Amino acid sequence: MSSTLADGVTIGDLGEIALIDRIRHRVPPAPGWVTTGIGDDAAVIEPARGTLDVVTTDTLVEGIHFERSFVSAADLGHKTLAVNLSDLAAMGATPRCVVLSLVLPATMAAADLDMLVDGMLTLAGRHQVALVGGNITRSSGPLVLGMTAIGALRRRHVLTRTGGRPGDELWVTGTLGGAAAGLACLLRDPAGPAEGDGDLAGCVEHYRRPEPRVRIGTLLGRNRAAHAAIDLSDGLADGLRHLTQACGVGAVIDGAAVPIDEGARRWFETQGLAPLDAAVAGGDDYELLVAVSRAHRRRFAAVTRLARGVPITHIGELTKDRALVLRTREGDRALPAGYEHFKTQEAGGRRQETGEA
Amino acid sequence: MSSTLADGVTIGDLGEIALIDRIRHRVPPAPGWVTTGIGDDAAVIEPARGTLDVVTTDTLVEGIHFERSFVSAADLGHKTLAVNLSDLAAMGATPRCVVLSLVLPATMAAADLDMLVDGMLTLAGRHQVALVGGNITRSSGPLVLGMTAIGALRRRHVLTRTGGRPGDELWVTGTLGGAAAGLACLLRDPAGPAEGDGDLAGCVEHYRRPEPRVRIGTLLGRNRAAHAAIDLSDGLADGLRHLTQACGVGAVIDGAAVPIDEGARRWFETQGLAPLDAAVAGGDDYELLVAVSRAHRRRFAAVTRLARGVPITHIGELTKDRALVLRTREGDRALPAGYEHFKTQEAGGRRQETGEA
Repeated sequence: MSSTLADGVTIGDLGEIALIDRIRHRVPPAPGWVTTGIGDDAAVIEPARGTLDVVTTDTLVEGIHFERSFVSAADLGHKTLAVNLSDLAAMGATPRCVVLSLVLPATMAAADLDMLVDGMLTLAGRHQVALVGGNITRSSGPLVLGMTAIGALRRRHVLTRTGGRPGDELWVTGTLGGAAAGLACLLRDPAGPAEGDGDLAGCVEHYRRPEPRVRIGTLLGRNRAAHAAIDLSDGLADGLRHLTQACGVGAVIDGAAVPIDEGARRWFETQGLAPLDAAVAGGDDYELLVAVSRAHRRRFAAVTRLARGVPITHIGELTKDRALVLRTREGDRALPAGYEHFKTQEAGGRRQETGEA
Repeated sequence: MSSTLADGVTIGDLGEIALIDRIRHRVPPAPGWVTTGIGDDAAVIEPARGTLDVVTTDTLVEGIHFERSFVSAADLGHKTLAVNLSDLAAMGATPRCVVLSLVLPATMAAADLDMLVDGMLTLAGRHQVALVGGNITRSSGPLVLGMTAIGALRRRHVLTRTGGRPGDELWVTGTLGGAAAGLACLLRDPAGPAEGDGDLAGCVEHYRRPEPRVRIGTLLGRNRAAHAAIDLSDGLADGLRHLTQACGVGAVIDGAAVPIDEGARRWFETQGLAPLDAAVAGGDDYELLVAVSRAHRRRFAAVTRLARGVPITHIGELTKDRALVLRTREGDRALPAGYEHFKTQEAGGRRQETGEA
């Protein structure tokens, strides 16, 4: 059906059935454990034997979490799935399926819907995630992308936020600050960085297409290598605050150890910003912060060896004292605040993550 | 925390943690099968033994599915859950838990959030549904309420849309047209019907607080009493069209048998509308349409006896001929079209239901 449509057709031009068909024709055949997929009142799924269900939901709102002027529809499809997979990874769960809720402005090009779905399905294919249902609503307001993801894990492999203990080492995957630099760059110039600016191009890509740490999260769960984990959707400062509150502990972060994205570091410096503070406060990196017992160091080392090139860096410790301390060469100071972005309207907006499922 | 807040506090005045606390303090303790509930990256749930997972998602958008001028926050909380439970019921599933995605205008009163959650939890309590997670986003656009519901059923109890065969009897629960009359009344006068107008008051209540047919749906599944089922979120005409398309059949509906809400019938007549056509086309009733094999009449009769006063009415048959025929005293004619509301902007808006999970 989609192939016969002229360019420039909008969501408002198409009826419900045509829109669903457009999506359905792009979705690969469902795996055998999907008993009833797209097209009924609900999807029916066979749980994986011996596992628990892990459920998370996340919503991206135009004007708050993104601007259509500087992210493509394909980026949005990718990101909607990525933020949900990141939450599953932080629980140690293997993702299985998603349902998608689209609230679409009637003026949106139908071709953008195709690209959005394709962007999502490309990432879904890499992680063997099935799109099993959803709903579509027309709106006169902003584009709203809602998704619920369901994963599976064995009972003893659950990675909660609450298990961290004083003395546990804090480790973080990947690098920090790249997405924040990319977003700051796009807010200044929606066209993106100048040609040849590899530093910023990498940061912008990091912001547009975050890579959820699915493999590391499931490895951490399966190997029971961590006491606690959280994903850094809203940055290290915010994530550490949530994790330490949930555990009833404090933390000391070694500023020199924080793995700042190199391109972001150079860019922050040219802007007169302190790279460490910017990287600690900045969001959208979707890395994992993990609390590891010293007794589990060997298990954890085994996981890091299987991480396929993703760096995992020791950045600090959980402490009995409930303060959050940033240790630098100039001395100890309080960890910079993360975003409390619900209260403060900011240019370009920020994602609001409740920390709930 | 909520008790210390002054009247008139808005969503924009509160930070993320305060908003989550407001919700969390209203939610009753989770059942034992919820291993990790509100407050982590995702919820963890133990599947019911021997069952499949049933997953559905639905989103209500201000200006499309409702106007805040004529439904209360508590109504919205009720309705967001009801539309999802209705989808589960149409699959024969027993609801278990939900995750809630709130996109809230910063100007919304915090007290309205409380009422919204309470309206939802009241209905949830009646059906033993646990709220296990969600997320909150601030928005400068319309209020958007997204929910994903998860239910359980045994493999052989799944009630799909696709199992109907020519010769199957068509039955419908409850009465039709009440919600459409209620909505039409509210669109004219958001204050609702005049005092003492019991007919319209019932219709408005029907629109504001639809009752999902959870018990009948699960009874139909457990007793394997139906070939196919669908919920009538968008009305009989729309639902019958979806069901017959999925089954590859047609249908004849006996106009005289269609159970029109009595208050709605009288109101439609005063408006110069044909009650039958209005009731067949009108949406928002959330009744179930069921195709029953003549061979299963006894099983089906047993279910109707257990339906606790909810009428279930025989309104027609599935046919080999793929036409959809409305049989009246004046002769046969084509079934009125349901809403194709995605393409046509209407006053007050209409819900857009994809028919996917």
